[in-house]
Amino acid sequence: MDILSLIEKKKKGLALTEAEIAFFVKGVTDLSLPDYQIAAFLMAVVWRGMDPEETTLLTREMMLSGETLDLSVFGSRTVDKHSTGGVGDKTTLVVAPLAAACGAVVAKMSGRGLGFTGGTVDKLESIPGYRATLSPEAFTAIARDVGVCVIGQSRKLSPADKRLYALRDVTGTIDSIPLIASSILSKKFASGAANIELDVKFGSGAFMKTQEDARALALAMIDVGKRMGRTVHAVLSDMNAPLGCAVGNAVEVWEAAQTLRGEGPRDFTDLCVTLTAALVAPALGLSREEAQGKAEEALTSGAGFEKMRQWVRAQGGDEGALTDFCRLPQAKEKKEITAPSDGFLYALDAEKVGLASMALGAGRREKDDVIDPAAGILLAKRPGDPVKRGEVIATLLSSCREKLAGGEETFLSAVKLSAEKPEKRPLIAQIL
Amino acid sequence: MDILSLIEKKKKGLALTEAEIAFFVKGVTDLSLPDYQIAAFLMAVVWRGMDPEETTLLTREMMLSGETLDLSVFGSRTVDKHSTGGVGDKTTLVVAPLAAACGAVVAKMSGRGLGFTGGTVDKLESIPGYRATLSPEAFTAIARDVGVCVIGQSRKLSPADKRLYALRDVTGTIDSIPLIASSILSKKFASGAANIELDVKFGSGAFMKTQEDARALALAMIDVGKRMGRTVHAVLSDMNAPLGCAVGNAVEVWEAAQTLRGEGPRDFTDLCVTLTAALVAPALGLSREEAQGKAEEALTSGAGFEKMRQWVRAQGGDEGALTDFCRLPQAKEKKEITAPSDGFLYALDAEKVGLASMALGAGRREKDDVIDPAAGILLAKRPGDPVKRGEVIATLLSSCREKLAGGEETFLSAVKLSAEKPEKRPLIAQIL
Repeated sequence: MDILSLIEKKKKGLALTEAEIAFFVKGVTDLSLPDYQIAAFLMAVVWRGMDPEETTLLTREMMLSGETLDLSVFGSRTVDKHSTGGVGDKTTLVVAPLAAACGAVVAKMSGRGLGFTGGTVDKLESIPGYRATLSPEAFTAIARDVGVCVIGQSRKLSPADKRLYALRDVTGTIDSIPLIASSILSKKFASGAANIELDVKFGSGAFMKTQEDARALALAMIDVGKRMGRTVHAVLSDMNAPLGCAVGNAVEVWEAAQTLRGEGPRDFTDLCVTLTAALVAPALGLSREEAQGKAEEALTSGAGFEKMRQWVRAQGGDEGALTDFCRLPQAKEKKEITAPSDGFLYALDAEKVGLASMALGAGRREKDDVIDPAAGILLAKRPGDPVKRGEVIATLLSSCREKLAGGEETFLSAVKLSAEKPEKRPLIAQIL
Repeated sequence: MDILSLIEKKKKGLALTEAEIAFFVKGVTDLSLPDYQIAAFLMAVVWRGMDPEETTLLTREMMLSGETLDLSVFGSRTVDKHSTGGVGDKTTLVVAPLAAACGAVVAKMSGRGLGFTGGTVDKLESIPGYRATLSPEAFTAIARDVGVCVIGQSRKLSPADKRLYALRDVTGTIDSIPLIASSILSKKFASGAANIELDVKFGSGAFMKTQEDARALALAMIDVGKRMGRTVHAVLSDMNAPLGCAVGNAVEVWEAAQTLRGEGPRDFTDLCVTLTAALVAPALGLSREEAQGKAEEALTSGAGFEKMRQWVRAQGGDEGALTDFCRLPQAKEKKEITAPSDGFLYALDAEKVGLASMALGAGRREKDDVIDPAAGILLAKRPGDPVKRGEVIATLLSSCREKLAGGEETFLSAVKLSAEKPEKRPLIAQIL
């Protein structure tokens, strides 16, 4: 078998066999295939696609290319979620403790972010003392005792994906459903959870620009899940505007804590409860309605917030920071953005808000960039709110004065005022 | 400008601008672009194609990436030909001296072959003493004095093509009309001739399997020629069976010399005269009919053969080898292939005959393989000939006894006998 014949086959739009896909992933992992042949193959996949069987085989081989976690000690109660990434997306920080409060086990490995804001682990590390690197024993013990443990992703997870992703990033071969699905799922499946929730975003701030594209990706991943015997469901959610009021790292941790205390934005709170219910229902053998009730109860009773405290404490973090904002990293530099005229905040382009947040220091442009945990944006107004000329729309935060100007310019390009009130869009478009 | 945006554009099927194509070729040539990004780009071109304007710009930039020959001292009389490669294709050895005898100037750089048999230069080097490397002064002087000079291709010609071709070869990105056209024409245009004939083969022994594909490639190249102000015409010729009776290197030189002496196979002789006429007509300002008469005259008068003698002598070769086969390299090992039954030789698959010839040592599998100049195949029967059981169909030649068995097996797989006489196919399907 040789890679050229695989490339030729894929170029013609033919399906690859199990042996061929295994050969490819092995060659990616053991470095026997050169980058240029992999790049040509990836472009042929972008062109011709892969059928569900091929996508499943690719996912499985990539998963098996590295370490796989065994969470079977927790039975079927283990849950994991993956978000395709959004602006202000701190849902994991709320859903994980709520799910644990319902009785599920969240033993989760999470990535660091590249782009708009940090990843979940970057956000958590803005809590003083929080340790995202633990021994396997400590990881399992916290998951068992608290029900939530979130650490950084092991480098040994799906090494095939590591190489493929790095190459896709520089060869224009990111936007392919089989490649996206296998990349996400190989790592999720290797992480061992029995029940997986995929939060697939669409809109200006998401990788998938339209709901149709998001739906196609979600269906492909659910299908791979079925073929591999895992419980996978997906939520299609709107990312045309940022989620909640906070965009950044420390500010998102704070908004998550407030949400668990019942003081978060209504729409974001509802989203988190719905995501939790959909996630724990299969894990605990409940109907969606029963799970919804349980998740609401976990929120209103304060059990969810209590779980977050236990979890942060167990991982070495300052739980006091969850009730006292001053104990989180503080931005030295602030800049208020005011409305240039009266009207309604008609739209707030999520992608541009994300870029503004990155300009302020909250995200990484390059892999080795250092994140400013205090940087970010606090929205005083959200789409649909009426605004008066001179009223504050948002506050930009940074540790570096020089970054405020760039952040402001980009943020302003995201703002659209209008005399007209925009139609309200539901955050969740569909649960699949 | 960056390569990723070019890849994205091409992926979407958009046309690249002049500046973008120049950027790409520059990055290929100065090595600033890595192989994997070039590979992804090439696959996107295979996928989406390039329009005539893009193909022309690519050809021009590739041509300008290296040395260009100035043959303007010869006015518009310079002619060059390119064959997309066939089995037993020794037409250049006949057409070049015939064209010179008609008054055209053939100052030609020719490649070494990779594949079935050697390239034109490999064939010429089977003549004892023939020097394929000359100083620019000697090259021009011989072209001026004799009218024909054929040397090996300069390494400084289209370095962009060198890198692209090597990469295409290992990434499954050979079969793309804009990539093939720009590869061929960038070198041909850099070689300086005013009139170019493209012999585009189709059939089992050719790169283009169908006449439609060959026609599409030919039309694309003619179009690029027009846009670049060169006279380019194309001949579509059949390569379902080998050309003539000899396949190899020394044996092809011998058949070419015999053809020029009027003793070659009829169909091959006619082909060479037609190719010569089409080539010299625009160079000498003649109608196709006038040129046809001139080319026939050059053959029958012996002027063409005399040109071949002068040419070979001028380049240091033993002209006596053109009239005495024993002075060419002789194969130590021979094997006669006989017909297993009575009937007609219905077909003789060119590709398989080519592979048999390579197995005997006449071609290169790898760039650094050494060619056996004496190896090859002499056909005693050609498609359409009646055969009797036990009658010799062909003689296999090699310097190495061990290679005979592999050559025989492959050759036999090319032979198709039948009770029915096959329809005769014209060698030239179309002149464009």
